[in-house]
Amino acid sequence: MKSKLGDQGVLQFEAEPVVVASGAVRPARRATAESMAQKQREISISEFFSKNRHLLGFDNPQKALLTAIKEAVDNSLDACEEAGILPELKIIIRQISETRFVMSVEDNGPGIVKQQIPKIFGKLLYGSKFHTMKQSRGQQGIGISAAGMYGQLTSGKPTCIRSRTGSDKPAHYYEIRIDTNKNAPTIVKDEKVDWDPPHGTRVEIEMEATFKKGRRSVDDYIQQTALANPHATIHYVNPLGEICDFERAAAELPVEPKEIKPHPYGVELGMLHKIMTSSGSGSIHKILQKEFSRVSDRVAEEIIQKSGLRGDRRSRDMSMPEAESLLKAIQRVKIMAPPTSCLSPIGEKLILDGLKARFKADFYTVTSRSPAVYRGNPFQIEVGLAYGGELPSEESMELFRIANRAPLQYQQSGCAIFRAAVTTDWRSYGLQQPKGALPVGPVALFVHMASVWVPFTSESKEAIAHYPEIIKEMRLGIQECARRLSAHVRHHRRQADEFKKLSYIEKFIPHIGIALGDILSLSREKQKEIVEVLTDTLQRSRQAD
Amino acid sequence: MKSKLGDQGVLQFEAEPVVVASGAVRPARRATAESMAQKQREISISEFFSKNRHLLGFDNPQKALLTAIKEAVDNSLDACEEAGILPELKIIIRQISETRFVMSVEDNGPGIVKQQIPKIFGKLLYGSKFHTMKQSRGQQGIGISAAGMYGQLTSGKPTCIRSRTGSDKPAHYYEIRIDTNKNAPTIVKDEKVDWDPPHGTRVEIEMEATFKKGRRSVDDYIQQTALANPHATIHYVNPLGEICDFERAAAELPVEPKEIKPHPYGVELGMLHKIMTSSGSGSIHKILQKEFSRVSDRVAEEIIQKSGLRGDRRSRDMSMPEAESLLKAIQRVKIMAPPTSCLSPIGEKLILDGLKARFKADFYTVTSRSPAVYRGNPFQIEVGLAYGGELPSEESMELFRIANRAPLQYQQSGCAIFRAAVTTDWRSYGLQQPKGALPVGPVALFVHMASVWVPFTSESKEAIAHYPEIIKEMRLGIQECARRLSAHVRHHRRQADEFKKLSYIEKFIPHIGIALGDILSLSREKQKEIVEVLTDTLQRSRQAD
Repeated sequence: MKSKLGDQGVLQFEAEPVVVASGAVRPARRATAESMAQKQREISISEFFSKNRHLLGFDNPQKALLTAIKEAVDNSLDACEEAGILPELKIIIRQISETRFVMSVEDNGPGIVKQQIPKIFGKLLYGSKFHTMKQSRGQQGIGISAAGMYGQLTSGKPTCIRSRTGSDKPAHYYEIRIDTNKNAPTIVKDEKVDWDPPHGTRVEIEMEATFKKGRRSVDDYIQQTALANPHATIHYVNPLGEICDFERAAAELPVEPKEIKPHPYGVELGMLHKIMTSSGSGSIHKILQKEFSRVSDRVAEEIIQKSGLRGDRRSRDMSMPEAESLLKAIQRVKIMAPPTSCLSPIGEKLILDGLKARFKADFYTVTSRSPAVYRGNPFQIEVGLAYGGELPSEESMELFRIANRAPLQYQQSGCAIFRAAVTTDWRSYGLQQPKGALPVGPVALFVHMASVWVPFTSESKEAIAHYPEIIKEMRLGIQECARRLSAHVRHHRRQADEFKKLSYIEKFIPHIGIALGDILSLSREKQKEIVEVLTDTLQRSRQAD
Repeated sequence: MKSKLGDQGVLQFEAEPVVVASGAVRPARRATAESMAQKQREISISEFFSKNRHLLGFDNPQKALLTAIKEAVDNSLDACEEAGILPELKIIIRQISETRFVMSVEDNGPGIVKQQIPKIFGKLLYGSKFHTMKQSRGQQGIGISAAGMYGQLTSGKPTCIRSRTGSDKPAHYYEIRIDTNKNAPTIVKDEKVDWDPPHGTRVEIEMEATFKKGRRSVDDYIQQTALANPHATIHYVNPLGEICDFERAAAELPVEPKEIKPHPYGVELGMLHKIMTSSGSGSIHKILQKEFSRVSDRVAEEIIQKSGLRGDRRSRDMSMPEAESLLKAIQRVKIMAPPTSCLSPIGEKLILDGLKARFKADFYTVTSRSPAVYRGNPFQIEVGLAYGGELPSEESMELFRIANRAPLQYQQSGCAIFRAAVTTDWRSYGLQQPKGALPVGPVALFVHMASVWVPFTSESKEAIAHYPEIIKEMRLGIQECARRLSAHVRHHRRQADEFKKLSYIEKFIPHIGIALGDILSLSREKQKEIVEVLTDTLQRSRQAD
């Protein structure tokens, strides 16, 4: 067969492929380096994700609807918080035919500047959050444009956007398509319109979808979003016309996360070199201080000294081997942990309030871990737990996974939170636990990871990757809550035992009184007295136990 | 807090973030639509994957080495096969410091045309296979450039490529970096060099890595690759200096897969509209026939008639509503399944040979399913099974997952193959199986999916997504093998039972002889005779069972 190399071209004009029966002789049309070169071409990121849309969470019609809403809600909440506005969202899903739905998400955020609208909704990998080290729900600049792309692919309809940036400014209405060959927006409609809200954005996408209730439903997602965002008011109408209003439980915005610089410990050689050579003019000493967090004058001096470089040289001239020396030096200098002002945890009180509002339970507890660091990225874990009451006692624990205030619903078993929950030894805290599984009992567990960069296992942001540092923090938080639960359960068991004893006393003492009365021929009054004395004595002895 | 909207800028010059003690008052610096617009920017695909490199399989140093080799090997094998060359690969891993390795993969393929080298190795999403419906290992045009990007990020070194397209042509040597801001190659070195092979390519990448032996190791991957590619010769030297040579078991190339067009049943509205409007000039009737597989003149006519459109109209003028009518019509016309000449299965004989070469077992079986279709994409499942012999009998089944002849090693539990194996009821075939787990016993199971488009769960191509059609085919193949295994095991058990009976006869009859002899006072000879007669009688009765 080797000899056939070079026969390329013989059947060049065979336009349609032909089925060759198994065993039949196939014509030779082998490729050469040259013919292969002709077929090489660039793949646009939109084409890539359009073909691989399951990577973005659009694998099936049910999940597609959820993902689209989630992306729009993430953006709305991020925008409101960044602008210091208490969020108020209107989410409406309308069914227009058996398989077609229109989702609409409206916020009272700051609005979007006209020129930016086409790119934000019509271009994948475009956004403000990717290059920023600061906690936010969105991070990749893919989500909402991917939702629009899915809508376009399945319904043929463009994404419709309405936005207004202030009461003194007009509202703009856009219809946008994505040109997937170019990964660029095509503007279908661009109008000024009348719109009442003084500021805000509304996005509407028509798509092929399925609406279901129950676990991992949009209803469920909205409820969890309200739980994780107690400062937001959410009005929600599902396609069945059911209206759910979640009024905000907190009248204040969360503490605003601040942008930070990367920490020297988390940086790799290539990145270090890139930062040092592309951060403008300045000495190595100066750029180190300017581009990294926790590098004081003294720390910069120490790094430079250990690296053997000259600190007053121009940073942008740094060679790769020099960057390598610098990196090695960084690892030998003690540097303070990164600042955690980039984080915005939910807070123990609000998590507790949320759990109480959502579950009728006997016992609630919440713990917030101190911030920690993985690969230079600060993060913080918060854990809440509800137990007993109306929670089902024969089922596995209900697990709520939240990342940067956004609930995660799919790929539970692939998530670091699941791993942390499963590898906690719940039996030592008084719960049943099948091997390698979540414990069984009336428990709801809520785990929130807040970070400048949540390492998701896929672009669809459904599960957190298994970084050991992250799992460890989660497990410590879970254990703290489990310990408190265990104390409660023990106390509860003691109480139950006591009630049991009490009921024995109440049940049997009168009979003993009657029996003694019969034997000793006592009067009714005497019998009653004996019963009282006996009851009293036993009660006291029981309490002394 | 709402009133603080617009205070933006107050702390504009605060260069370094400051830790604010919990509860302290934070300065207001809220964003507006305008300030947010200034921060919006494009994210290059290289930046995206550099930050999210775990999506590509570069999450940790051990996996990074494996992924890099895998990507290079995939490309080499694809190129050789496409050019009709029996592949011969040289894979060498050298350790150059505790955490630094150089991997080198060389093939005897057709080589790469000089002008293409920088883009193939220095640009993500660039390749020839993405737009082609034909079975190949690579599909996305990300792999090898991502490996180079990882190398550059962790070692600072460029990717080194040597390639030659024919004995009459010079060999080219390139050193390439990726400019991650632009997702474009930077040429560090470009030279003509002396290189012996008449044609072929060698790629070398230096990177931070860890080398381990055992499961999911590079050693293991190479072995499995040889098993799935019996037509390839592979020379492999690991960093410990251990040399493994896998000589090809098949002297012929696999049947060459042919490129096909998409099948009308698998196309969605957006895609249909795009194809109809961007496939050059031609009538609707003509474009339907030209751009889709299995659309004959008659089928095209029937589709057009049912759509209510006019078949002689220019296809490129088609509106979205018209495309919708066309799509609905397509679904009401009976169209032949897509051609399967785009597939290149390994074949039962070669899988069997491979299993025999790899495992010392008692029983082997292989089955090849007929091609099937998911979402318009043809695919074919092959299953092989080895049982008994030296396979460990106390452990879970060993599962080999292969997609387009490339072994999959990570994310087993997230893979459709695992799902198909776990949901097979192995107990009914005579094996033990814990609930929801792989069966326990001396079994190795090999499952190969060949397709024009394997739907991987992530860009790192580690697991196949859970399409019901795919899982069903896999399960049917597995069941076929399991049925044969079960017949073997039953036969084997009968035999074992017989041996047991035989051993009883051999063990006890002489004693009975002696006892009878004692009772009846028989001579030694008579005793021996009785033993023989008894043995013979029992043997015959046993065989008649």
